[in-house]
Amino acid sequence: MSLEVFVAEAFGTMLLLLLGTGVVANVALAGTKGNNGGFLMVNFGWGLAVFAGIYAAALSGAHLNAAVTVGLMTNNAEQFAPGVDVNFVNMLMYFAAQMIGSIVGAVLCWLAYKQHFDAEPDPANKLGVFATGPAIRSNGWNLVTEIIGTFVLVFVIVAIGSTPSGLGPLAVALLVVGIGASLGGPTGYAINPNRDLGPRIAHALLPIKGKGSSDWSYAWVPVVGPLIGGALGGLVATFISFPAITG
Amino acid sequence: MSLEVFVAEAFGTMLLLLLGTGVVANVALAGTKGNNGGFLMVNFGWGLAVFAGIYAAALSGAHLNAAVTVGLMTNNAEQFAPGVDVNFVNMLMYFAAQMIGSIVGAVLCWLAYKQHFDAEPDPANKLGVFATGPAIRSNGWNLVTEIIGTFVLVFVIVAIGSTPSGLGPLAVALLVVGIGASLGGPTGYAINPNRDLGPRIAHALLPIKGKGSSDWSYAWVPVVGPLIGGALGGLVATFISFPAITG
Amino acid sequence: MSLEVFVAEAFGTMLLLLLGTGVVANVALAGTKGNNGGFLMVNFGWGLAVFAGIYAAALSGAHLNAAVTVGLMTNNAEQFAPGVDVNFVNMLMYFAAQMIGSIVGAVLCWLAYKQHFDAEPDPANKLGVFATGPAIRSNGWNLVTEIIGTFVLVFVIVAIGSTPSGLGPLAVALLVVGIGASLGGPTGYAINPNRDLGPRIAHALLPIKGKGSSDWSYAWVPVVGPLIGGALGGLVATFISFPAITG
Amino acid sequence: MSLEVFVAEAFGTMLLLLLGTGVVANVALAGTKGNNGGFLMVNFGWGLAVFAGIYAAALSGAHLNAAVTVGLMTNNAEQFAPGVDVNFVNMLMYFAAQMIGSIVGAVLCWLAYKQHFDAEPDPANKLGVFATGPAIRSNGWNLVTEIIGTFVLVFVIVAIGSTPSGLGPLAVALLVVGIGASLGGPTGYAINPNRDLGPRIAHALLPIKGKGSSDWSYAWVPVVGPLIGGALGGLVATFISFPAITG
Repeated sequence: MSLEVFVAEAFGTMLLLLLGTGVVANVALAGTKGNNGGFLMVNFGWGLAVFAGIYAAALSGAHLNAAVTVGLMTNNAEQFAPGVDVNFVNMLMYFAAQMIGSIVGAVLCWLAYKQHFDAEPDPANKLGVFATGPAIRSNGWNLVTEIIGTFVLVFVIVAIGSTPSGLGPLAVALLVVGIGASLGGPTGYAINPNRDLGPRIAHALLPIKGKGSSDWSYAWVPVVGPLIGGALGGLVATFISFPAITG
Repeated sequence: MSLEVFVAEAFGTMLLLLLGTGVVANVALAGTKGNNGGFLMVNFGWGLAVFAGIYAAALSGAHLNAAVTVGLMTNNAEQFAPGVDVNFVNMLMYFAAQMIGSIVGAVLCWLAYKQHFDAEPDPANKLGVFATGPAIRSNGWNLVTEIIGTFVLVFVIVAIGSTPSGLGPLAVALLVVGIGASLGGPTGYAINPNRDLGPRIAHALLPIKGKGSSDWSYAWVPVVGPLIGGALGGLVATFISFPAITG
Repeated sequence: MSLEVFVAEAFGTMLLLLLGTGVVANVALAGTKGNNGGFLMVNFGWGLAVFAGIYAAALSGAHLNAAVTVGLMTNNAEQFAPGVDVNFVNMLMYFAAQMIGSIVGAVLCWLAYKQHFDAEPDPANKLGVFATGPAIRSNGWNLVTEIIGTFVLVFVIVAIGSTPSGLGPLAVALLVVGIGASLGGPTGYAINPNRDLGPRIAHALLPIKGKGSSDWSYAWVPVVGPLIGGALGGLVATFISFPAITG
Repeated sequence: MSLEVFVAEAFGTMLLLLLGTGVVANVALAGTKGNNGGFLMVNFGWGLAVFAGIYAAALSGAHLNAAVTVGLMTNNAEQFAPGVDVNFVNMLMYFAAQMIGSIVGAVLCWLAYKQHFDAEPDPANKLGVFATGPAIRSNGWNLVTEIIGTFVLVFVIVAIGSTPSGLGPLAVALLVVGIGASLGGPTGYAINPNRDLGPRIAHALLPIKGKGSSDWSYAWVPVVGPLIGGALGGLVATFISFPAITG
């Protein structure tokens, strides 16, 4: 993998996390202009964060998500992106780029909302910007929800890639809006290990005023669930035929 | 009809129902993150559920809805999908695939929201995820509403199919968002027999904690209404000319 | 003008008014599922009503709005639609088709929401589904608002028509969403004589339970304002150059 | 630069500001129909204001924003628009056109909402339509937020321009919706000197009933921040490769 591809993947993931954690900060932190803006606003925020990230990471195929990288492998993709072979080393390079990008994105969000992090009294709301958490805690059921959500994400991304519809990055962005609205209720939809682990590391490292625990006991769920769901999505998609859609 | 076409139709309908019932669960069940997210969020959830389902079911023409299958017949379509003739046996195969998919989709939604079904005290809210119900009960008027809504759906789908606009699955998805916002007020817009009957069967069969009646007395309305509306939509569309739109 | 073109224009306007008045009914009438769904839902409802109407009326160029018809004339358009010359008789035919369609659309909305019209206690809410009314009554200022809103509508429609962007009917639909959100606050944005006059006639004629006045004293504002705004929009657009947008 | 290009840029910026300030007026001023419509409605309003403005200003490349003009320069663009060279004089011409357009747009918004400006008791709400203001005042941190937001805007606009995706003006419009939802919380996202300075001048000059201070002490932040962010965005984008996206 060339350095250019690595940088593109990191940069795209950085934009995804900056804008994605940003909309949560806007809805959740004290005193912002988007306070209590509603769950649909969060869904559009994350969907359009993906939208922006895809343009930035066009060179790397814009995985922006380790579950997508894994899903492409179980889908027997020939390349991660034009000119980038599917192999173990490149997989690790994608993971590294995604992790770096996700941490940097979360740090930039913290800077953009610095005063609102300071003004927010509840440590749980601060952590909620960086990391997902379950509405009702149960590692088993939370895992099921993350697996189902990421299965849909990766399966339909493969379908979209196989049936060009002229919408470009918009198709995946709208898919993310939809999964968030429909399957985000129980766990806040990580559906991407990098959406959760990178920012959680940032939360642990940053000098956030009055921050509480980084809730590491839950941290494996939004990593393992999406990886399982993504692998399943890519695998099951090999059994379905996707002809081109026209019109 | 090949097995591949059958599986594609079932899989697409499964995604439609998983995401569609999912957004209702998110808005209606106790303790979710999208609780009270608003009717527009429900509209976008269903529209984007259609969006995802269409990509998955490209091979079968993505009816995902028995009213569309019937509407294509009254519209004198030559094929249900490329290579799939319009005939009675194939119609029944579509119905079967749609029914299987809709039941499986509702079961997956129940699994994704399992803890919130358990936590929800009101049996009516649980049923509301699976099946539609009228705001003011009157089989006659509720039937009228479902007929009008499905008429618009199938008529405009035929128009969209006849006037390629480069939007692909997005055009139908947005149409569903619009019909929901505009005509969903009285009955919760089944506009699709499979949106209602499949999940209602799942509700009757699943071991849902504290569930109440499956309200079978209403169940015929969101089946018969959409079938009539779809048949009328396909028929009336034969009298209108749809030239290609460019630009 | 052929009968086919006339029917297409009437049918498209019927769909516009059915879905457009429908979303207002859903938000405003007693007991609906979309009650108090918010102004953004109303904006999307009207925008997607235009979206559906355009597909249905592709043959007539989908004016759906007498202000668009007038604006095409002041813009020196050569044709109202492919094969339909711009002349006075054809203009009157468009007006007639639009008026018939708008009345029928409002009647269908009344049927779809029949029980909610019956259940709604406030006559003003019933009229509000059919006709626009000012937030603060002042014929002069209300006229200004309608002129500005329709000016933007027709000017940008001409621009969209001159700079094909591959979005087809979606571009105009989103424009209507935007004008509603931005300029709909003072008068409820008729920006279309047919949005107001046709349904107001339906309100006067239909046996709506407990209906009040049809407020004819205001009825000229949402007719004259949009006609002036549309004429200005088409005229001013002749002074601006619109090259094709690519990408 | 030809007069036609100048007029197009001014006209597009006028539409951007008319619709953009309009949605804020609708949400914020007393007695409007969109009162308390929510932050997501504001985000869509501004995004679709950009959408309309781009069509109107196709001839000038539709910068509509001095930060975009500056970002194109730091990005080493060869032309501001087809036939318009990048040079200092043309830059000043863009600035002038944008400033004139932004003032006129704000004046038209005031006319459209005249009675609601009169009815609104709080001078801060009146100013809030014309100019942005920080949720928590701190010139330094507010500057950081504006720099980050505009960096994302200009960087991704360059990426969109380099990777045609068939969405035309919609891609930039959705980007603006997303940046607003995600990064608009602390400062109300000027991300455009002309969004703030032009309307603030209009606020100072217009005979608005009961208006208060124009808050000039903050006025430099939404000018300098976007110019820095835009310059950085254009510059950093020169280090990333953007291949064409297909599909």
